[in-house]
Amino acid sequence: MTLKVYLSGEIHTDWRDEIEAGVKAAGLDVSFSAPVTDHDASDDCGVAILGGESDKFWHDHKGAKLNAIRTRKGIADADVVVVRFGEKYKQWNAAFDAGMAAALGKSLIVLHGPDHQHALKEVDAAALAVAETPEQVVQMLVYVETGQLPG
Amino acid sequence: MTLKVYLSGEIHTDWRDEIEAGVKAAGLDVSFSAPVTDHDASDDCGVAILGGESDKFWHDHKGAKLNAIRTRKGIADADVVVVRFGEKYKQWNAAFDAGMAAALGKSLIVLHGPDHQHALKEVDAAALAVAETPEQVVQMLVYVETGQLPG
Amino acid sequence: MTLKVYLSGEIHTDWRDEIEAGVKAAGLDVSFSAPVTDHDASDDCGVAILGGESDKFWHDHKGAKLNAIRTRKGIADADVVVVRFGEKYKQWNAAFDAGMAAALGKSLIVLHGPDHQHALKEVDAAALAVAETPEQVVQMLVYVETGQLPG
Amino acid sequence: MTLKVYLSGEIHTDWRDEIEAGVKAAGLDVSFSAPVTDHDASDDCGVAILGGESDKFWHDHKGAKLNAIRTRKGIADADVVVVRFGEKYKQWNAAFDAGMAAALGKSLIVLHGPDHQHALKEVDAAALAVAETPEQVVQMLVYVETGQLPG
Amino acid sequence: MTLKVYLSGEIHTDWRDEIEAGVKAAGLDVSFSAPVTDHDASDDCGVAILGGESDKFWHDHKGAKLNAIRTRKGIADADVVVVRFGEKYKQWNAAFDAGMAAALGKSLIVLHGPDHQHALKEVDAAALAVAETPEQVVQMLVYVETGQLPG
Amino acid sequence: MTLKVYLSGEIHTDWRDEIEAGVKAAGLDVSFSAPVTDHDASDDCGVAILGGESDKFWHDHKGAKLNAIRTRKGIADADVVVVRFGEKYKQWNAAFDAGMAAALGKSLIVLHGPDHQHALKEVDAAALAVAETPEQVVQMLVYVETGQLPG
Amino acid sequence: MTLKVYLSGEIHTDWRDEIEAGVKAAGLDVSFSAPVTDHDASDDCGVAILGGESDKFWHDHKGAKLNAIRTRKGIADADVVVVRFGEKYKQWNAAFDAGMAAALGKSLIVLHGPDHQHALKEVDAAALAVAETPEQVVQMLVYVETGQLPG
Amino acid sequence: MTLKVYLSGEIHTDWRDEIEAGVKAAGLDVSFSAPVTDHDASDDCGVAILGGESDKFWHDHKGAKLNAIRTRKGIADADVVVVRFGEKYKQWNAAFDAGMAAALGKSLIVLHGPDHQHALKEVDAAALAVAETPEQVVQMLVYVETGQLPG
Repeated sequence: MTLKVYLSGEIHTDWRDEIEAGVKAAGLDVSFSAPVTDHDASDDCGVAILGGESDKFWHDHKGAKLNAIRTRKGIADADVVVVRFGEKYKQWNAAFDAGMAAALGKSLIVLHGPDHQHALKEVDAAALAVAETPEQVVQMLVYVETGQLPG
Repeated sequence: MTLKVYLSGEIHTDWRDEIEAGVKAAGLDVSFSAPVTDHDASDDCGVAILGGESDKFWHDHKGAKLNAIRTRKGIADADVVVVRFGEKYKQWNAAFDAGMAAALGKSLIVLHGPDHQHALKEVDAAALAVAETPEQVVQMLVYVETGQLPG
Repeated sequence: MTLKVYLSGEIHTDWRDEIEAGVKAAGLDVSFSAPVTDHDASDDCGVAILGGESDKFWHDHKGAKLNAIRTRKGIADADVVVVRFGEKYKQWNAAFDAGMAAALGKSLIVLHGPDHQHALKEVDAAALAVAETPEQVVQMLVYVETGQLPG
Repeated sequence: MTLKVYLSGEIHTDWRDEIEAGVKAAGLDVSFSAPVTDHDASDDCGVAILGGESDKFWHDHKGAKLNAIRTRKGIADADVVVVRFGEKYKQWNAAFDAGMAAALGKSLIVLHGPDHQHALKEVDAAALAVAETPEQVVQMLVYVETGQLPG
Repeated sequence: MTLKVYLSGEIHTDWRDEIEAGVKAAGLDVSFSAPVTDHDASDDCGVAILGGESDKFWHDHKGAKLNAIRTRKGIADADVVVVRFGEKYKQWNAAFDAGMAAALGKSLIVLHGPDHQHALKEVDAAALAVAETPEQVVQMLVYVETGQLPG
Repeated sequence: MTLKVYLSGEIHTDWRDEIEAGVKAAGLDVSFSAPVTDHDASDDCGVAILGGESDKFWHDHKGAKLNAIRTRKGIADADVVVVRFGEKYKQWNAAFDAGMAAALGKSLIVLHGPDHQHALKEVDAAALAVAETPEQVVQMLVYVETGQLPG
Repeated sequence: MTLKVYLSGEIHTDWRDEIEAGVKAAGLDVSFSAPVTDHDASDDCGVAILGGESDKFWHDHKGAKLNAIRTRKGIADADVVVVRFGEKYKQWNAAFDAGMAAALGKSLIVLHGPDHQHALKEVDAAALAVAETPEQVVQMLVYVETGQLPG
Repeated sequence: MTLKVYLSGEIHTDWRDEIEAGVKAAGLDVSFSAPVTDHDASDDCGVAILGGESDKFWHDHKGAKLNAIRTRKGIADADVVVVRFGEKYKQWNAAFDAGMAAALGKSLIVLHGPDHQHALKEVDAAALAVAETPEQVVQMLVYVETGQLPG
């Protein structure tokens, strides 16, 4: 069983690397996809390729749409969508991805610290698991693939 | 043509009333639905009906799921989903609703002030319109129903 | 908002009447559907109309399929599917209905006593609410329709 | 033609091994998936990874949802879902899986002894085959793949 | 519960009238639709409206497509599709309608005499009921709507 | 049978009025929807309501998206989509609507003069009827509703 | 581009072999599937594996359902469904398969002699091509894959 | 991540070659499909294989339908549909493909010169990117696959 996992959300820490490394160490049959995590490239991709915009709204609009080609494919192809909410920023795109994943019937895992518990209650309620650490996500993927529990 | 409109998001101002009043004044054939907007009831509905929880996570979980019966029907039945982002709070449920609406192919209108423009770029990119005021939403519903422009 | 509710499962107590009466008393805009609850008619409908079978398997088969015309429409049309598990019998048809409802994205409410908690954990995990009494179901429908909490 | 088969239900006998061995002996192009069949791991996986719960309901809830990541993928990817009902226990999860499989349009094979015939009539009515032994399931898979009948 | 029933197939006897009369006599909430049953109009409608064709294939093609506007709506809107196979003719359109109904998840009732039993086994296998007389169809619709068995 | 008909395409002649008048004269149960046919309003609606744009591309973009709220609902709700290609202009929006209608499984009627026959062959190939005059569309709707042929 | 082709219908001539040989000779990237074409095995498979039936209807029923596991997968996985109508027999299963294929949006090719033209007009009207010989089917597959026309 | 890209529209310049060459040079994991781009073969394929037609409408009809086997598979399988509008011709098939792609939820890229901006506004409004040159399409595919921006 190849499990396809999309890693959505926060792009300022190395949580994706932790999960991918843990899964690799466990020798699982899991393939990962993710948004472009280079913040500047992600913000400017639209105008860099398709031409500049004087209005910031359209600058952002072009970039967000171009990024959507990648993120929509990632979500559409995934069995499991992991959405990470970090400590900072609005991160509405993360919650938006979670909503898409839920509507498409994907298995949703939400990853966040206890401070966000109340504010994320609607997102958590749509999830099959709510984790606090990348290691827990690895342990879940190990369990889903092999039936083995940690330790 | 009866247009079904779901009004998602911010619950601390009277923007829903403004839109409904404007639409009523215009004599349009529009039906509205919305989440429960009584903040306390919305937070406590789960435990009030199904029994208390000592753990805040499950307290919130029960409430969020019960509210989902209403919100999912509202979104599923809607032709147009309007999502309002206010000035305060994380409002991840609003972005989550927008993601569901987009994935279900609903016509999405996002309503927010200019301060949120960059943070909402992915949500805006999935929308058919981005408005700043409830009045603009009314004018759009009038136009969609009747073809009449303001003024 | 008209809420369509399908009442699946146990047919030996009057829980459906309790819910319908409670909803009526509350003046809600809810329409109910349910399987045929006359046990003998439900068991024998196939052979009574389409001709007898010497083999009990096919006797049951004809009846179960004829009943499926009603139950599938009820589930397909519903916004909310309430599945009641009683004290006795295998009630596999109730769990089967719950599985259909979940796969079709219906809002699922499971109604059962505490004794069944462990055995129903997979069904409960797919539900938006787990209730113990018909009164709680009424209170939830009141809340979903009106935003009003009991008491 | 690669046939993907999900083996749902009873986890206390070696029926899955029998089917997999029979299919292997026949040299068929069939891939199998199944739930985690280690009863203790399956019951405790949620709390083992995501943290303990004092309330048995939430203990089970976390586990059932984590297991659902695996079972939903298994069913969603399958061409054929075989659901085995054993002699003991309520096995509502098996009937729930059968309901999901039916709603998703999967080819459903139900495997059970004659004692359960009447109680399973609604599940059997949704199936393309009702078998009593794992050997019959193997023979059907051989026939579906190759057109060869036994003996 | 309004049941929508599409009556497909044989157009040379008055079986549709029998069913509609029986349902009316029983006071059921059932709405019927059907193909155009005037054989000549059905054959010639395409060329009568859109202009003649010298080649019989295209003459028939235009008519079959125009009729499909009606038949596809009838099947798409139906809860129950009844397909009648008469004694004569190939009636491939009836079997085609049955295939469409099955693929769309409609409740399928097949109506035919015992002579056609073997030739229709694949169609019957996709049905929820196989009847021999219009009266049986009426009795089933009465049962599905009211739970009442005949006599 | 209420037939819902969406009238897409050319907005410079009164073909919609002809069809609606003919259908009304025939007393049919047909409901019509259509895009906004006021060319100037349609072009400028976005900036008139949501604020001006200095770049013509975004001026048009805002308008096209706002119009899409109406056109997508019209097509999504329709049983039959009639697409009219006139003598002038590129009319790519008409062909785009036809593609959407085809992908959504709507019954498609294309209405155009003989000059466009070759250029529209792919669109015509997806249609259930190709007409040259509004009167033919009326005659088809009469036939589909009543089974009556002209004359 | 791998094209998946399901070859449905008549099982008494070697038309499938002709098509497969022609495609192989052309070196195309096409994979074929088909029903079991051994008439006796196809008729008796149900009772041979799952136990005899005294009633011919249920004998056939068990077989038809077991065969459906194969045929439904073949059709569901296919890009193109070719349905051949031979000179003899009712062949309602062929027309049923064509109806399923049409409802599922598959590209349908119908293969039959001129005698059946009128009786198959509804099936032909749902097809993308109507051929008279297996060689024409090969030529179409060559063209679809390579753009090369015969001769 | 393998990206499947369908290249629809204008067939008189070598834009497809430019894109495929650019993607190959970048070493991306992208697979392309496209319609038959030999204009004469595309026009005459139907009659060349299935027999001549005296009426040009049916000549074109047979060809358009045979081509649809290829184009529908290309669009249905694609993650990204690029539609190119050239300087000449009506190109309604290109807009039709864009409409299908939009309705199927594909990521749509439109490629055209500034002259067509106003006439294509509805098509552009459904797209995730509007490009003027094949090189921009290559740059977008590079970015979507690797996150790398040009230069």
